[in-house]
Amino acid sequence: MTALSVDCLNLWIVIGEIEKLNEDPRIHGLLLRLCRESYTSKILNAVKPEKDVNGITDFNLARLVHGDICECVVPPTARAVIKLLEKQACTTLDGKKILLLGVQGPLEVSLQCLLQRKGVMTMSLSWNMKQLQTMVNISSELQIAAQQSKEWNLSCLSLQPISPVPSDIEISRGQAPKPIHILAKEIGLLTEEIEIYGQTKAKVRLSLLERLKDQPDGKYVLVAGITPTPLGEGKSTVTIGLVQALTAHLKINSFACLRQPSQGPTFGVKGGAAGGGYSQVIPMEEFNLHLTGDIHAITAANNLLAAAIDARTLHENTQSDKALYNRLVPLVHGERKFSAIQLARMKRLGITKMDPKTLTADEINKFVRLDIDTSTITWQRVVDTNDRFLRKITIGQANTEKGFSRQTQFDIAVASEIMAILALTSSLSDMKERLGKIVIANNTKGQPVTAEDLGVTGALAVLMKDAIKPTLMQTLEGTPVFVHAGPFANIAHGNSSVLADKLALKLVGKEGFVVTEAGFGADIGMEKFFNIKCRASGLIPNVVVLVATVRALKMHGGGPNVIAGVPLKKEYTEENLKLVSDGCSNLLKQIQITQQFGVPVVLALNVFRTDSPAEINLVCEIAKQSGAFDAVPCRHWSEGGRGTMELAEAVRKAANQQNNFRYLYDLELPIVEKIRIIAQKIYGAQDIELSPAAQSQINCYTQQGFGNLPICMAKTHLSLSHMPEKKGVPTGFVLPISDVRASIGAGFIYPLVGTMTTMPGLPTRPCFYDIDLDPDTEQVKGLF
Amino acid sequence: MTALSVDCLNLWIVIGEIEKLNEDPRIHGLLLRLCRESYTSKILNAVKPEKDVNGITDFNLARLVHGDICECVVPPTARAVIKLLEKQACTTLDGKKILLLGVQGPLEVSLQCLLQRKGVMTMSLSWNMKQLQTMVNISSELQIAAQQSKEWNLSCLSLQPISPVPSDIEISRGQAPKPIHILAKEIGLLTEEIEIYGQTKAKVRLSLLERLKDQPDGKYVLVAGITPTPLGEGKSTVTIGLVQALTAHLKINSFACLRQPSQGPTFGVKGGAAGGGYSQVIPMEEFNLHLTGDIHAITAANNLLAAAIDARTLHENTQSDKALYNRLVPLVHGERKFSAIQLARMKRLGITKMDPKTLTADEINKFVRLDIDTSTITWQRVVDTNDRFLRKITIGQANTEKGFSRQTQFDIAVASEIMAILALTSSLSDMKERLGKIVIANNTKGQPVTAEDLGVTGALAVLMKDAIKPTLMQTLEGTPVFVHAGPFANIAHGNSSVLADKLALKLVGKEGFVVTEAGFGADIGMEKFFNIKCRASGLIPNVVVLVATVRALKMHGGGPNVIAGVPLKKEYTEENLKLVSDGCSNLLKQIQITQQFGVPVVLALNVFRTDSPAEINLVCEIAKQSGAFDAVPCRHWSEGGRGTMELAEAVRKAANQQNNFRYLYDLELPIVEKIRIIAQKIYGAQDIELSPAAQSQINCYTQQGFGNLPICMAKTHLSLSHMPEKKGVPTGFVLPISDVRASIGAGFIYPLVGTMTTMPGLPTRPCFYDIDLDPDTEQVKGLF
Repeated sequence: MTALSVDCLNLWIVIGEIEKLNEDPRIHGLLLRLCRESYTSKILNAVKPEKDVNGITDFNLARLVHGDICECVVPPTARAVIKLLEKQACTTLDGKKILLLGVQGPLEVSLQCLLQRKGVMTMSLSWNMKQLQTMVNISSELQIAAQQSKEWNLSCLSLQPISPVPSDIEISRGQAPKPIHILAKEIGLLTEEIEIYGQTKAKVRLSLLERLKDQPDGKYVLVAGITPTPLGEGKSTVTIGLVQALTAHLKINSFACLRQPSQGPTFGVKGGAAGGGYSQVIPMEEFNLHLTGDIHAITAANNLLAAAIDARTLHENTQSDKALYNRLVPLVHGERKFSAIQLARMKRLGITKMDPKTLTADEINKFVRLDIDTSTITWQRVVDTNDRFLRKITIGQANTEKGFSRQTQFDIAVASEIMAILALTSSLSDMKERLGKIVIANNTKGQPVTAEDLGVTGALAVLMKDAIKPTLMQTLEGTPVFVHAGPFANIAHGNSSVLADKLALKLVGKEGFVVTEAGFGADIGMEKFFNIKCRASGLIPNVVVLVATVRALKMHGGGPNVIAGVPLKKEYTEENLKLVSDGCSNLLKQIQITQQFGVPVVLALNVFRTDSPAEINLVCEIAKQSGAFDAVPCRHWSEGGRGTMELAEAVRKAANQQNNFRYLYDLELPIVEKIRIIAQKIYGAQDIELSPAAQSQINCYTQQGFGNLPICMAKTHLSLSHMPEKKGVPTGFVLPISDVRASIGAGFIYPLVGTMTTMPGLPTRPCFYDIDLDPDTEQVKGLF
Repeated sequence: MTALSVDCLNLWIVIGEIEKLNEDPRIHGLLLRLCRESYTSKILNAVKPEKDVNGITDFNLARLVHGDICECVVPPTARAVIKLLEKQACTTLDGKKILLLGVQGPLEVSLQCLLQRKGVMTMSLSWNMKQLQTMVNISSELQIAAQQSKEWNLSCLSLQPISPVPSDIEISRGQAPKPIHILAKEIGLLTEEIEIYGQTKAKVRLSLLERLKDQPDGKYVLVAGITPTPLGEGKSTVTIGLVQALTAHLKINSFACLRQPSQGPTFGVKGGAAGGGYSQVIPMEEFNLHLTGDIHAITAANNLLAAAIDARTLHENTQSDKALYNRLVPLVHGERKFSAIQLARMKRLGITKMDPKTLTADEINKFVRLDIDTSTITWQRVVDTNDRFLRKITIGQANTEKGFSRQTQFDIAVASEIMAILALTSSLSDMKERLGKIVIANNTKGQPVTAEDLGVTGALAVLMKDAIKPTLMQTLEGTPVFVHAGPFANIAHGNSSVLADKLALKLVGKEGFVVTEAGFGADIGMEKFFNIKCRASGLIPNVVVLVATVRALKMHGGGPNVIAGVPLKKEYTEENLKLVSDGCSNLLKQIQITQQFGVPVVLALNVFRTDSPAEINLVCEIAKQSGAFDAVPCRHWSEGGRGTMELAEAVRKAANQQNNFRYLYDLELPIVEKIRIIAQKIYGAQDIELSPAAQSQINCYTQQGFGNLPICMAKTHLSLSHMPEKKGVPTGFVLPISDVRASIGAGFIYPLVGTMTTMPGLPTRPCFYDIDLDPDTEQVKGLF
C-alpha cells in the first residue's frame, strides 16, 4: 500500500525488473514514468500486455511522440497523469495494484493520494540504487519526441574552401566531425535507437520505423546521370553537395543515402567513394574502409553458404542414405529429433511425420538427398579484394575431397546476391525469408535447390543481423548521411538500401528531403531504381536530378576517347560549343527516359574549372528546352553546399510539381517481353536477340515459377547500347542477350548483355603504393 | 585583462580552438581546467609546447594521474592552482598573458586576482556556447584518474545459478550486461580511451599505455592444461570463473584476456568459445560472431597481400622492364616520382638515386622485377569459414590470366600470419614493421621477398589500424574481459594478444590480477606462451594455473577412447580410482614442464557432476605431492565465480611466491638445437629426426639470417608425443620433423611434426542446422 518512485533507472536493470514483475501475480499493472535514458519502446515493450493497464503505457508513448499532450506533462504533474489514468483505465482501475516507477518528487505524494482515492493500491519495489547510472530527466526525451517533424536544430560545421582545392583526404582531415551521438540527437534519434561504432559512425535500429510509422514521409530525390565517361561525372558529389546546400544553407532537413563502397577498388584502381572536394562524407577513410562491417558480414554469409553446398555434395556422394540420415538427425540423449529447419523441409517434401523413427526408406531418401547438379551451381564464393587470379579456379583438389573437384570462381563481395538482398529488404523477417529463397543450383531433376534446403537460412540471418541496420555518418558540413548496402550496378541493381531511404524519409519529416543515388547512367541505375527498388519499397520519388558534365557531353558530341590515367585532350580543356551542342543528344535522351517514369527532372551541370560560361549556358538552355523542369550549374566540388544552393532551390520547386510516377512494365508480362520493353524504350534498340542459352534459361525460370520477377539488365554503362564505344544516342541496333541468370532471394532475373566481369584486378601500380598509416598520429595517408 | 572560464567544453571544439590559440601571438600560454569529457591527453597534446607555460598542463595531468596532489585539487581551489603555477612557472609568469579555460565558479574570481598579483594578464575568448554539449565536472575525471591503482568500485551482476544448468545461450541471455561505457568508467578508462561498438563492446585505445606507463603492473596468471581429450577440459571456463571469483567475490581487481574465436567452428562443429555454464563472456553471441571486426580486417589484409603477389607476378611475366617502370613510376602532371615505399625499396637495392629519370637499364631491371619464384610462395589466401573444398585449389584459370595458373590453398583466417602478428605486436609502428617483414616467397635467386617489396605495407597497416585495439567485454558477473587476437595454436602460438595483457596489467593496478589462457596442453600453448609471447612482451608471469579433469586423467590412465559426439563410456561416469591414479602421470609431467620455467603452479580440477569425492581428493593430493603449490576443485561451470573462490585464494597466495622465471632455450642456438631442446625437455622425446626438406629449409632460413628466431612447434595437442593415440607420458620416441616454415613478420620458425590441417571442414550436420534468429526479438538461437 505504499508508493515508490525511483530517481533514475537504467535500461538493462529496468528490463530485468519488468520481466520479474510480469510474472509477479501480486502486481496488476505498471505505469512507467522513467528518466530519459530509460523511457524507450524497448522498455515499454517489455511490459506484458496484460500488465499494461488498458494500454496506458502505449497511450503515453504514442501521445508523447506525437506531442499532443506535451503541454500538460512537461514537466509531468500528478493531475496530468491522473487525467490519463481516468481517461484510459478508470473502469478497470478499482481494486488493482499498480506499480509506479518514475521521477521522484512532490508528484509522487499527490499521485499516491489521488490513486488511493481511485481505489488503486500502489506497491513498493526494492531497486538496487547503487546500480542506477543514467541521470537525465524525462523532459529531454519528450522534447526530442515532440520535435520529430520540425526543422532540426543542427549545429552545422562551417567550411572555408580554399583554392586550388586540396586533396580529398586533406579536406576530410581538416574538418573535425561532430561526435556521432550528437548528430543523432540533433536529428531526433533516441538513445536506444543508435548503436555507436567509435566517434564517427553509428548504426540505427529498425525500431525507429515502428516508432515513426505514423509520421509522413519527406520528399524523395534520386540523383542519376547521363551516359558517363570512364572517369565518372560526379553523381556522389552532387548528392552530397545537394544535402549540404539544403540543410546547412537553406535550413531544410535533408539526408543523403549512399552506397557503401567495396574495399577492392579502394586499394586497386578507383580509390574511395566518399564524394570529393568540398562535398564529402567524413571521415572519408572510415567510409572507405571497414565502416561498420556490413560487407564483411555479407562475405561471411555468402561463403558459409558456398562451403555448405560443396560439403553437402561431398557427404551425399560418399555416404549411404542411412548414414546420412543418422548424421543429419543424430541420436542425442537416446533420441532423434528434427530441427525446425528440417521440419520445414519435410513439409516442402510433403512428408508430414514428426517422429524421425517413422520415415520410410523412400522418405528418408527424399529427405537426405538434395541431389545437387553441380554443373548448375550458380552460387560463387566472394572476397572484398581485387583478386583477378580467382576469376576461374578449380576447387576440391585435396585428397580429403576424394576427387570431387570442380571449376568455379570468386566474385567481388559486393556482387553477392546477399548484398542485393540487403539493399532491397524491408525488415529482419523479410531478409530471413529472402535468404532462405536464394536458389544455388538445380537438382538432378531440374528443380531449384535453395539455401533453406541446405538448412543454413538461420545462420545466414544471424550473420546479417547487424548489417541490416544502416550506418549514420555526416557530410563535411555536419549534415546526416546514411551509408547502407552497395550492390554491383550491372549484375545487380546498383542502388543503396530501401531501409536507409525509409528511415531517412521519416527522420526528415514532411517538409524534408532524402537524396539518394543510382549507379551509372539513368538508362542503367535509374531504370533499376524505379522498376526494382521502388517496386520493393513502394516509395514514389518526387524529383530526379540528372547529372551531366561538359566533358561527357563533348565526348558524346564526337570528342576524342576519354581514358582513365591519360591526360585529357585539348577539346576537353578549351571551349568547343559544337561538341557540347552535338553531345546534348545523350542528355535529351536521358531526360526522355526519365520522363517515361512521370517524374520531374532537374539537370545538375557539374562545373569544371575549364568549362566556359558559354558552354555552361548552352547546356542549361538545351536541357530546359528538352523538358527539364530546371537546369543549373553546380560548384559543390570547389565550394561545398554553397555551390549547390541554386540546385537545392530548383529541387525544392520541382518537388512540388505534380507527380505521375509509373513503372515501365507490368510484372506479369513474359520475361522476354519485359527485356524487350527495356531494350526498346530505354536503350533505343530496334529489338533483342536471345542466345539459345538465354532462351533455355528463360524457359527454365518461367517453368520454375520465377517468370513474374522484375528484370535487372547487366549491360555496359559506357553507352546506351551494348557497345561501349557507341556514344551519343545509338540507334538501329539489336541488343544481344547472351545468357540469363536469376537472383531469386533478391527477387530479379538478370539477362547478360555480353560478358560482365564480377572480379576486378589489380593494375601494375595499385593505389596501395601511396596508402600509408602514420603510426604516431594514426592518420591514413594516400586515400583519394 | 579579463579572465574567462567556460562551463563545459566539447572535445572537437576545444581542439579546434586550441589550434587557433596556438597560432595567436597575443596568447603566451594556456592553462587548461576542463570538464570531464574534455580533460584528455588528446586535448593536452594539442597545446603547442611553447604555449604550455613551463609544462603546467603536463604537470597537471601527470600529477593528477598519479594522485599525489589530488588532495589539494579535488575539488580544485584557486589556491591549489596558484600553488602549482608558482611551483612550476613563477620565473616565467611575469608579463605573460595566459588563457584560463575551466570550470566556472568562485574559483575563477580568486584565481584572476591571484594571477594579476603575480603579474599575469588573463585574456578572454569567445566560445560558441550553443555547440557545447558535454556537461560533467572536472572532479569526476580527477576521481577516475586518482582511483587508477585502487580497488574498483564495480557494480557486479549477481548470479542465481539453477540446476540442472541451462544451455550457454540461455544463461547468457538471462543476464542483462552492463552498458559497456559504464564498465569502462568503473575500471578507470577515460571517455577518450574507448570506442564504443554497440551497447556491449568497446575497443580500447593504446594511448592508455602511455597514460599509465608509470603505473606498476598487476600480477600475471596463465591458465594452461594437461593433455586434453578431444572435448577440451575447460581452460576458458576456468579463466572466466577465476576472474569472476577474484573480482565479484573477493573484490580484487582482475581482468580475463581471451582469444577471439574463429567463426568457422561456430557454424561448423565446435560451437562458440565464450566459456560455458555460469562462467561466460556475455553476450556470448556477440563474442562468437563478428565481434568488432578484427578477424575480418585480418582476412582483408591477408587477401590483399595474396592478390598483390599473383597480380605482380602476372604483370612481370607479361611486360618489358620499360613498360613496368613506366607504370610503376607513372608520369603525373608531366613528372615521375618515387613513392615513399619505392624509395625504401631502392635503398634496400643499394640504389641511392632520387630522380626516376637517372636510373640505368640495369637499375630499372633490379627495381621493377621481384622475380618471385612461384614454387616457393608460402603466403595463402584465407576465409573465416570451414570450407574444405579450398584446401587445395588451382587459381588463375581465366583467359585474362594468360595461363599463369598455379596450385595453392585457402587457410582458415585465424591461421594467417597477420593474426600471429596481431597477437605479438607491441604498438602500431611495431605492427607496421612486422607486416612489412612478412616473407611471402623467395625470388629466383633464393632471397626472401617481403610484403614491403610489394609496396603493400602501408595498406596492410591501414586495414589493421582498428584491429590493433583490444575489445572490452564482460563476464556473467559484470567483471572486465579483453578479447583480442586468436592465432592458430599449432602453426602459430595460440595465445591472445600481448597488447591486451599489457593494457589489463595497467588497469588492474599493482594488487590486481590478469588471467590469460594458452591453447591446448601446457606442452603446446604454455611452452609457446613463455618462449614466444613472453619474449615478445618482456612480461613475466607470476602463476600458472593447470587445468585438469577426472575425465582426461582417466583417459591417460588407460580409459577407452573419448570421441566428440559419441556418449562417454561408463569408466568416465562411474568412480574408478585406478584409472585416475594411473592417468596422473600426465598431470605430473605437465607440472614438471611448468616448473622448468620457474613459475609456481596451481592445479585447478574442473569438477564434473559425475566425479566422486574420492576421485577429486586423489587428484588434488597427487598434484600437491608432485610439486604443485596448491590443488583445488573448481565448480565455476555450475556455480560461477562462487565455485572458483578456493582457486582464487590459492592463486593469490601463489602470486606472492618467489618467481624464478626463465626461458627454455637461448635464441642464439642453432634452429636444430632449439627444436631438440623442446622435443626432449618438453615432450620427453629421445631425439628428433629431420626430413631432407626440413633440413634444407633450416639451412635456407639460417642462411637468410632468420636463425635466431624462437621456435613454434606445430604438433598434435592430443598427446605429449606426435602420435595422438599415445596418452599418458609417452617415452622413447623420436620426433619426426617433416618440414620447417617461417613466419618472419610474426617472428618465429615453425617446424611441422606431421601434417597440420589449416582448414577445417563442415560435417554432414553442421552446427548451423540449429542456429536461428528470431526476427521479432532479434534473439539468436542455437549457439552453444
